[in-house]
Amino acid sequence: MLSVSQARLLGNIAALAEIGAIEGGGSARLALSDEDKAGRDRVVAWMRELGLDVSIDAIGNVIGLRAGREKLAPVMTGSHIDTVRTGGRYDGNYGVLAGLEIVRVLNEAGVTTRRPIAVAVFTNEEGARFQPDMMGSLVYAGGLGLNEAYAAADKDGIAVGDELRRIGYLGSAKPGALRPHAFVELHIEQGPILDEEKLQIGVVESVQGISWTEYSVTGVSNHAGTTPMRLRRDAGYFAASANLFVRAVAREMGGDQVGTVGSLSLRPNLINVVPNRSVFTVDLRNTDEAKLREAEARVADHMAKAAGSERVKVRSRVLARFEPVIFDAKLVSRVEHHAKALGLSTRRMPSGAGHDAQMMQRLCPSAMIFVPSVAGLSHNVGEFTEAADLVAGAQVLMNLILELAE
Amino acid sequence: MLSVSQARLLGNIAALAEIGAIEGGGSARLALSDEDKAGRDRVVAWMRELGLDVSIDAIGNVIGLRAGREKLAPVMTGSHIDTVRTGGRYDGNYGVLAGLEIVRVLNEAGVTTRRPIAVAVFTNEEGARFQPDMMGSLVYAGGLGLNEAYAAADKDGIAVGDELRRIGYLGSAKPGALRPHAFVELHIEQGPILDEEKLQIGVVESVQGISWTEYSVTGVSNHAGTTPMRLRRDAGYFAASANLFVRAVAREMGGDQVGTVGSLSLRPNLINVVPNRSVFTVDLRNTDEAKLREAEARVADHMAKAAGSERVKVRSRVLARFEPVIFDAKLVSRVEHHAKALGLSTRRMPSGAGHDAQMMQRLCPSAMIFVPSVAGLSHNVGEFTEAADLVAGAQVLMNLILELAE
Repeated sequence: MLSVSQARLLGNIAALAEIGAIEGGGSARLALSDEDKAGRDRVVAWMRELGLDVSIDAIGNVIGLRAGREKLAPVMTGSHIDTVRTGGRYDGNYGVLAGLEIVRVLNEAGVTTRRPIAVAVFTNEEGARFQPDMMGSLVYAGGLGLNEAYAAADKDGIAVGDELRRIGYLGSAKPGALRPHAFVELHIEQGPILDEEKLQIGVVESVQGISWTEYSVTGVSNHAGTTPMRLRRDAGYFAASANLFVRAVAREMGGDQVGTVGSLSLRPNLINVVPNRSVFTVDLRNTDEAKLREAEARVADHMAKAAGSERVKVRSRVLARFEPVIFDAKLVSRVEHHAKALGLSTRRMPSGAGHDAQMMQRLCPSAMIFVPSVAGLSHNVGEFTEAADLVAGAQVLMNLILELAE
Repeated sequence: MLSVSQARLLGNIAALAEIGAIEGGGSARLALSDEDKAGRDRVVAWMRELGLDVSIDAIGNVIGLRAGREKLAPVMTGSHIDTVRTGGRYDGNYGVLAGLEIVRVLNEAGVTTRRPIAVAVFTNEEGARFQPDMMGSLVYAGGLGLNEAYAAADKDGIAVGDELRRIGYLGSAKPGALRPHAFVELHIEQGPILDEEKLQIGVVESVQGISWTEYSVTGVSNHAGTTPMRLRRDAGYFAASANLFVRAVAREMGGDQVGTVGSLSLRPNLINVVPNRSVFTVDLRNTDEAKLREAEARVADHMAKAAGSERVKVRSRVLARFEPVIFDAKLVSRVEHHAKALGLSTRRMPSGAGHDAQMMQRLCPSAMIFVPSVAGLSHNVGEFTEAADLVAGAQVLMNLILELAE
């Protein structure tokens, strides 16, 4: 059996983590930043060293293609290399670098598969700088137009289109032109379940639906010492009450419903002034679309009522909305089969995080393989997965790709 | 009777408001900024045009002295010209410019009072950039050492001492060297009471005690989609719960207890990451020291309990703490006397905001005169007081100063 190399896989993960390295062992490579460009340049160089035919499409997705014996649709794997501002070294990177490691193993063994094999690096999966997240794979799958994607701007008003051009990744290929036979993404779990249950492989059946909304609240700024409590129209207080409500709804609904207020800013943001402005986000997720809609409706209802009682104006804007995704049942079974064939312990599970594979499922049969994250840490410089687990996941991916490519 | 000029008073208020002008009619002259320096330069020039002997002390307080017939302790008036980031044009400026207008009236009438008259501009009253607030008058009254004041730094780590030197207002006079016979401060109410009750003059008997605390919270950043609600250690949620608790305590305690979370920042401040860090402030005020302590104790108790249940670490730091101040009873009666003698409607009241006069009360008999703020707007570019009210307040101040100076 062909085997992936632990030393090479870990070495490349470490090498990529040095680009945009931040204290604590993590990386900061926000999408389309200088650091992201440096990371892309590194990965493209590795692809070329491996003899892959590298193409860059109009949304900056990078695809390295390894020719097959026949001119058929390729088996595709891959993920992303952009990170959140305080990201770990495995999220996304692991899937891309495992794909390259598989190519390296095939090259060394002189194996040519029947179908071509493609390794993809999708643009802006995290959505930490530009919304929506999973932008590159969404455009690739036809779910978002190029012009809309180009116009998405970060907090400083800088647009995706301009940044793609600036960093030299506004490519000429048409996104989605290469339609895969199947897509399999290898990723760390980013949650605590496999670690808590001491299991090696997560067989991902579905991805939670995601609902991201930004609220912009306008109250009245006033002196903190002289304004009686009953007269306040406090945009910061409104945001706080929304935060508590979001958690209460998630707790009450139970199941896998989660809700988060991750981003919040106040104006004028001074000790002794009642805030007249707050902008904050609500992130809601559920694997069940009906329940996700229920959570959205309850949050919207709270916002309307609280806006009335605080006498503030509230505008809301949907930043991202994706329905839950069910992966291809046959492909999911094959993930499970190959993991078990290697003697690995498995568990079927949904993904709480969004992933490029959920967009690719629109285009072709897709599936995901999860490996454990110690203590479930994610989007955190302390994110960690044991070497043996990283190797096990890559081996399952390789065996599945070889089956699919023959 | 000598009368202040409405045209001159309003003209000077408008002229000063142009320095650091911001949209909506307000001003931004944060303490010791370039805009504050420009405002100081303008006021010092006016003082010199009026023939005042201008001295600048080691904390940057500016005092313009008009000689009297005898070498006695002066009657002092004044306030401040620094503003919050989105300040109005009356807060502080009105008291300083009314003082200069009184000097102008005396100059034109050729009147020399028995006691000298001093007009003071105190440094950093607002505390919006450097804490504690009322810094200049506090140092003047001996309540804060120079070295401690110099070391106070803003959010960017820039210190008061360095900024005083940079803008050329690190003077040579010893703060407090000129000990007044009495101090009277004229100020807008910054609250809604006079406006709601359609009264012209507020006779200020006391100032609320002020308690400012900053909380720095450390939780664990984690993926917003994959982290079950029960496992979260959310520093942003903690801040939100504190905000709601502060209001609940103020509401429950009633009376003039107020509480505000005005400033808050989250890290990493991303939609899809549970915040691992929040820094926020709590502003509590009451005219009754025992009740203020009760509010502080209840808030501290909540913080400790909430830190336990959210499993976050909380550090707190007192940014400012002033006990309530009772003004000189005889002087307060003279404010009331002069207002009534002019046929103005009055009301005795506490001040919800902190003022330089409360520091001066440590040094000499002090009092304050309030005029209405329309709708109670304060620390807001929409802050507004009717011209007739501005003139009435300045006239009360002049008549009281003339009495005190003879």
